[in-house]
Amino acid sequence: MTGPVADDGADGALGGPVLVVGAGLIGASVAMALTRAGVETYIRDIDPTVAHVAASRGAGSDGTPREAPELVVVATPPDQLGEEIARALSDYPSAVVTDVGSVKTKPLARLEELGVGTRRYVGGHPMAGSERSGPLASTADLFDGRTWAVVDRPDAEATSVRVVERLVETCGAVVVHMSAVDHDRAVARVSHLPHVVAALTAARLVGAPSEHLALSGQGLRDVTRVAASDPGLWRQIVTANADAVGALLRQLRAEMDCLIDCLEARDGAGVGRILQAGVDGVGGIPGKHGGPSLALAAVTVAIPDEPGALARLFADAADADVNIEDLRIDHDPARAFGLVELDVSDDLADWLMSFLRTRNWTAHR
Amino acid sequence: MTGPVADDGADGALGGPVLVVGAGLIGASVAMALTRAGVETYIRDIDPTVAHVAASRGAGSDGTPREAPELVVVATPPDQLGEEIARALSDYPSAVVTDVGSVKTKPLARLEELGVGTRRYVGGHPMAGSERSGPLASTADLFDGRTWAVVDRPDAEATSVRVVERLVETCGAVVVHMSAVDHDRAVARVSHLPHVVAALTAARLVGAPSEHLALSGQGLRDVTRVAASDPGLWRQIVTANADAVGALLRQLRAEMDCLIDCLEARDGAGVGRILQAGVDGVGGIPGKHGGPSLALAAVTVAIPDEPGALARLFADAADADVNIEDLRIDHDPARAFGLVELDVSDDLADWLMSFLRTRNWTAHR
Repeated sequence: MTGPVADDGADGALGGPVLVVGAGLIGASVAMALTRAGVETYIRDIDPTVAHVAASRGAGSDGTPREAPELVVVATPPDQLGEEIARALSDYPSAVVTDVGSVKTKPLARLEELGVGTRRYVGGHPMAGSERSGPLASTADLFDGRTWAVVDRPDAEATSVRVVERLVETCGAVVVHMSAVDHDRAVARVSHLPHVVAALTAARLVGAPSEHLALSGQGLRDVTRVAASDPGLWRQIVTANADAVGALLRQLRAEMDCLIDCLEARDGAGVGRILQAGVDGVGGIPGKHGGPSLALAAVTVAIPDEPGALARLFADAADADVNIEDLRIDHDPARAFGLVELDVSDDLADWLMSFLRTRNWTAHR
Repeated sequence: MTGPVADDGADGALGGPVLVVGAGLIGASVAMALTRAGVETYIRDIDPTVAHVAASRGAGSDGTPREAPELVVVATPPDQLGEEIARALSDYPSAVVTDVGSVKTKPLARLEELGVGTRRYVGGHPMAGSERSGPLASTADLFDGRTWAVVDRPDAEATSVRVVERLVETCGAVVVHMSAVDHDRAVARVSHLPHVVAALTAARLVGAPSEHLALSGQGLRDVTRVAASDPGLWRQIVTANADAVGALLRQLRAEMDCLIDCLEARDGAGVGRILQAGVDGVGGIPGKHGGPSLALAAVTVAIPDEPGALARLFADAADADVNIEDLRIDHDPARAFGLVELDVSDDLADWLMSFLRTRNWTAHR
């Protein structure tokens, strides 16, 4: 049922050619990264104009490959992945096939339904680029330094896995091996659940009086930011991972039932237990660059809302020789200036605050 | 039942003295702002050492007021507000009394239970400073430009309301008048509900395998950031506003039930409807400086993780004469550089991206 497996024998870069199917943000960016690396790349889309736009921006050629591709990268919307992977395996019987979808078990199940052998198929998922869309948003460096999950399966050819690993490396990303089930459970927890919860919370704002919304602060903006993403794409992602997302939603609902009961009973201890679990959960999120979480402290600085103000602030912070680990601009509801929170190493925060004050900034911790 | 009302007759600054009860972040910051403005200020705390620390940092005097205060600002934890407001009204029968609590109906109900007249009491709530705590975090400019809700009640003396308005202005904040019920409903929606939902979501991370958490991205960090706040304080806030928070949680649970059903039924249209409501809700959050939301576009720039890199970037952006409306640093899990997203006006994004490239930045949209 499977065709012969291409084995280039070498452990170097991709040999190519590579065919990318789907010229949206991710597909076009993969094609641009491969083209940048000198790999012969072709790009195709259900809409030839979209493929042409991507090609004109450096995403390879939208013509017909002159020889059979070494690798086909399927980058279509989630709902079509199973069919498109099957088509690629059938159309190119010597090619390795991968995809870039956010959910990994569903396309595999569909391939099984279709009776397609999957020794040449190795799923992937780059953790990048989810908030913008289309070939005009694509870029060769979208994956630089990002994590890219590669799906381990006992029945996948080792040579095929190596080709996909080389794709990831050529795109500048870092391989993380996972099973399909593990991957889908992981992204349900760290991506899909937060996304739907943000949407449910944001939806509570619809129809609220504007004088109530006037009290909105940075906390609300942070909690709901991801809920502004393309609902058509996320509908497909969440539905494709329905079992894992549903299981977590049921757990969350059970805790929410507890919270509602605690509030009705004015049970402060019960409410506190739930909030403490939240504190514990945040503590488990890995820190910057995957290392252990640094102890950070925030220094807040008032800045005028005009070009150049941030530049002056960061030039002064650089003079203090303090590395800024993270920052936020808080929106000031009433005046034409902003508040910037600079997160720096806990033991440097007092120094930075004092230094900025010598440069006439209003800074506090 | 009420004492005589102080009426200073003038529409200028606070006359003072002002007594602040509670030397935590908010109380000490109020006292520092008043002291900065030249108002004679006293600060008291159940722990005299805490009051002394605050006083030594510029929050007035921790001694005994030499004359009856014009205004008492109650800044104790939420659970004690009713009792402390009653005590202040009784101890200082000519003073106006306000508080800075996050919930406004519960202290009023407690005062009614206690049979205390409230013509001299005018509740307040500055929308600032919720993430740090203690007098060491306090600062005179915590309230600069922030919204400060002042509670309208038909039975409050107009002269007392004016005194509290002057407190707000002296602290550099902007008065927003609201009824207690409106205030509590508003903060339930824009602050307390997002807070508990963030905690419930973050709690789902407890015990998750570290290789699952390795896929965490900026979306998860944003959704859960507020859940790291002091659970003891938030337990009191949420419990004090239990009815309003509970009502919204029930609405959210009903939508969550729908979502769980849609996922079980693989009903993509139903899932899409819920996600679209989230998009609509985010669109209702007021933009920067309370104005209508600007159409923004993000320009993403790769920067080395070293002091001075951000300074160079912002200096170059300033040379492009583009105002940066918001920004985020995305954490790179694998490499020692960061990705900065600059939000700028939609019609300037292409210009900024091109300009930064001429300065040798890797920038894309």
